Amino acid sequence: MPLRIDDARMMAASVPSGVSPTEWNDLAIRFGEVHAAVASDRSAGRYGFMELDAQAAETKRVLDYAAHAPMRYTDVVVLGIGGSALGAIALRSAFGAYDDTPRLHVVDNVDPHTFKALLARLAFDRTLWIVVSKSGATVETLAQYAIVRHVLVAGGLSIARHVVFVTDPVAGPLRAIALDEGIPAFDVPPNVGGRFSVLTPVGTLPAAFAGYDVGAIVAGAQAMLDRCNTPALADNPAGLLATLLWRAHQRAGQSTHVFMPYSDPLRDVAPWFVQLWAESLGKTDADGLPAGPTPLAARGATDQHSLLQLLMEGPADKVVCFLRVANHARDLMVPKSEIVPDAVAFMRGRSLGELLDAEAGATARALVSAGRPSLTITVDGVDAYSIGELLMFLMIATVYAGAMYRVDPLGQPGVELAKRLAREALERSTQ
Amino acid sequence: MPLRIDDARMMAASVPSGVSPTEWNDLAIRFGEVHAAVASDRSAGRYGFMELDAQAAETKRVLDYAAHAPMRYTDVVVLGIGGSALGAIALRSAFGAYDDTPRLHVVDNVDPHTFKALLARLAFDRTLWIVVSKSGATVETLAQYAIVRHVLVAGGLSIARHVVFVTDPVAGPLRAIALDEGIPAFDVPPNVGGRFSVLTPVGTLPAAFAGYDVGAIVAGAQAMLDRCNTPALADNPAGLLATLLWRAHQRAGQSTHVFMPYSDPLRDVAPWFVQLWAESLGKTDADGLPAGPTPLAARGATDQHSLLQLLMEGPADKVVCFLRVANHARDLMVPKSEIVPDAVAFMRGRSLGELLDAEAGATARALVSAGRPSLTITVDGVDAYSIGELLMFLMIATVYAGAMYRVDPLGQPGVELAKRLAREALERSTQ
Repeated sequence: MPLRIDDARMMAASVPSGVSPTEWNDLAIRFGEVHAAVASDRSAGRYGFMELDAQAAETKRVLDYAAHAPMRYTDVVVLGIGGSALGAIALRSAFGAYDDTPRLHVVDNVDPHTFKALLARLAFDRTLWIVVSKSGATVETLAQYAIVRHVLVAGGLSIARHVVFVTDPVAGPLRAIALDEGIPAFDVPPNVGGRFSVLTPVGTLPAAFAGYDVGAIVAGAQAMLDRCNTPALADNPAGLLATLLWRAHQRAGQSTHVFMPYSDPLRDVAPWFVQLWAESLGKTDADGLPAGPTPLAARGATDQHSLLQLLMEGPADKVVCFLRVANHARDLMVPKSEIVPDAVAFMRGRSLGELLDAEAGATARALVSAGRPSLTITVDGVDAYSIGELLMFLMIATVYAGAMYRVDPLGQPGVELAKRLAREALERSTQ
Repeated sequence: MPLRIDDARMMAASVPSGVSPTEWNDLAIRFGEVHAAVASDRSAGRYGFMELDAQAAETKRVLDYAAHAPMRYTDVVVLGIGGSALGAIALRSAFGAYDDTPRLHVVDNVDPHTFKALLARLAFDRTLWIVVSKSGATVETLAQYAIVRHVLVAGGLSIARHVVFVTDPVAGPLRAIALDEGIPAFDVPPNVGGRFSVLTPVGTLPAAFAGYDVGAIVAGAQAMLDRCNTPALADNPAGLLATLLWRAHQRAGQSTHVFMPYSDPLRDVAPWFVQLWAESLGKTDADGLPAGPTPLAARGATDQHSLLQLLMEGPADKVVCFLRVANHARDLMVPKSEIVPDAVAFMRGRSLGELLDAEAGATARALVSAGRPSLTITVDGVDAYSIGELLMFLMIATVYAGAMYRVDPLGQPGVELAKRLAREALERSTQ
């Protein structure tokens, strides 16, 4: 079954702050307008992440490159930060490691502690560095690359065999270096921003080396794109998510959007979504006012023991998006014969997957009994097609939400000042 | 140098929503009252986590047990969830793995995917299972233990040599099983709740096996306890944190408290703090109203590329607590001779630690230029003593904040319903 949304607990029949049938009609009309506006911007080429056909050739280049790489690498390391890293991290958590493919590492911070530990345990002559920066000028990533390059050169290793760039097809320092030094480089299309780039080589190149099924990921994404071609709110999953979350914020004061996968493999979809939602929507709006919800990443069942108390009894300013997996493995079972305390006697003959799933449902019901809204997104399993659906679903929803919040979901004007101040501080201090 | 707080950017001289000198005097008086109330409750034995002297004998038992364990284990696995896991995870991230001590794993979820993968790669005859549940009745943990026990028994391995419990000294199913089956068990004092238990065997037993310096952790915690004996707001670090965050929420509408370590090793202090802050303060208050701030875990510099846009331009409902490390390693340097793009020329001769530190400072300055408050907590380094200081600092601050929000910081009454509903769902479904 394709990805589905249960929105019953967002409705007035379930919670006091919910959507009434009258309001639903109003929201459906509003979404129709938003859908039209987004479709128009899409036709104008604003949303490159939706142009999967245009990506097909580059995706094929990626797969060919990984299949015929210069050597068999033991380790593949992504150097990237923010949107250049979070997609690869989400995919790695979802699909894990195979015995016959290189280990995939993602270095997404400049903490010397982490980087040093990684450098110490890599065999440089069997390692590929994927340097990801759309602008080609990300300080953190270029600083790390400079250190790596120095080690490669000192070791007499070929840069072109051990480094690949993922960057703008024309502009920026990385592209220039690639041309100068003959380093293979893959394209992030100019109309695809970092946080929307997981289906470009930013995500597909690490995925291809790790052995993930890139074709199925893209197929799932395409299916979701097709489903979201309709202006009918009830039939458009991304429209439903965007409309209900925006409305919860603007009309019911639920400004914190908790995104809570009940799944360890899907846990890192949460920080990926947090970046997408926060950086796209946290903006000055068309009236010049600060706008944007606060996304909060959580993980079930674990965070029932961390956040649930606040969700149940704290301020009613949150809505929870559960992410459930329909088909958990059923093979880790508490043996029927095992001696267990009375408190967990009901677990005899039950699997951990059943427990996890029961907890997700129970938490939604507990919230509704406290008058707190939630919605549940369900994917069939942690397979490539389902992940492709899920990622595309969340990206399209973000663009719709931008139109509803009346902010430009692209760009991140608010982060430039901190970059400049950091550069100035380092330039000022005596060397 | 001991842990210190820079609160300048919380003041009216820095940000419009800041504390004026007059208000500071008022807050200092108020904190004096809170300090007295907490001291009184402490004398009455409510806050067992502050009674480090009373813990000393059990800590010694822990260290002796780890030093003279039944065998040399290759792997030590903590089975625990929420407060039974987050402290061990924070310590493991901080101190890492040593070559001559067992690998430390923490299984803090019931996802079958994760657990199965771990079971498949462990040598059971060289593994110790630390089962942590204060109540002794945590469903997730007991279900996992039942599965492990079955494997141990089937393999003819001695439970008493491969399992240790950490639980209430008298009450609960785990204690009863320990007595029945001769399983070693360590005590969580009845007056120490899960989220305040990191300095009890919940944290110290995994730490001892991993080779961390438990004595220094406790010494740092004791030093912080001593510093917080004063009712003078300016001299009491935990008082300062609690007072400024509570005031930001109640008087300036800054209900989201972002906790942002600029450090990979300290990253998991953030989710530990999130649980502490959310579950302790997210409560019905003395007036019967929903209360509590929303803590949000972040990590610098990475999340400058994720959350900073929202922090700069989104709603002014947040305050950021930076956590900085004074002494980053300075040995990963961009070589002066290395060819780097103009955009990062300033990094020549600079270390990654300098960059990370410059980014923390620059982000605080960027926020203040947008009128957004922040405070900075600085620890000397990622050493056992500093971590002990930090953890105790945050636990004491939580208790002070409870008094300010007028909620009981102990207990978590809001989570019981979800547990009951999950149990009922599993009991109902046909086996």
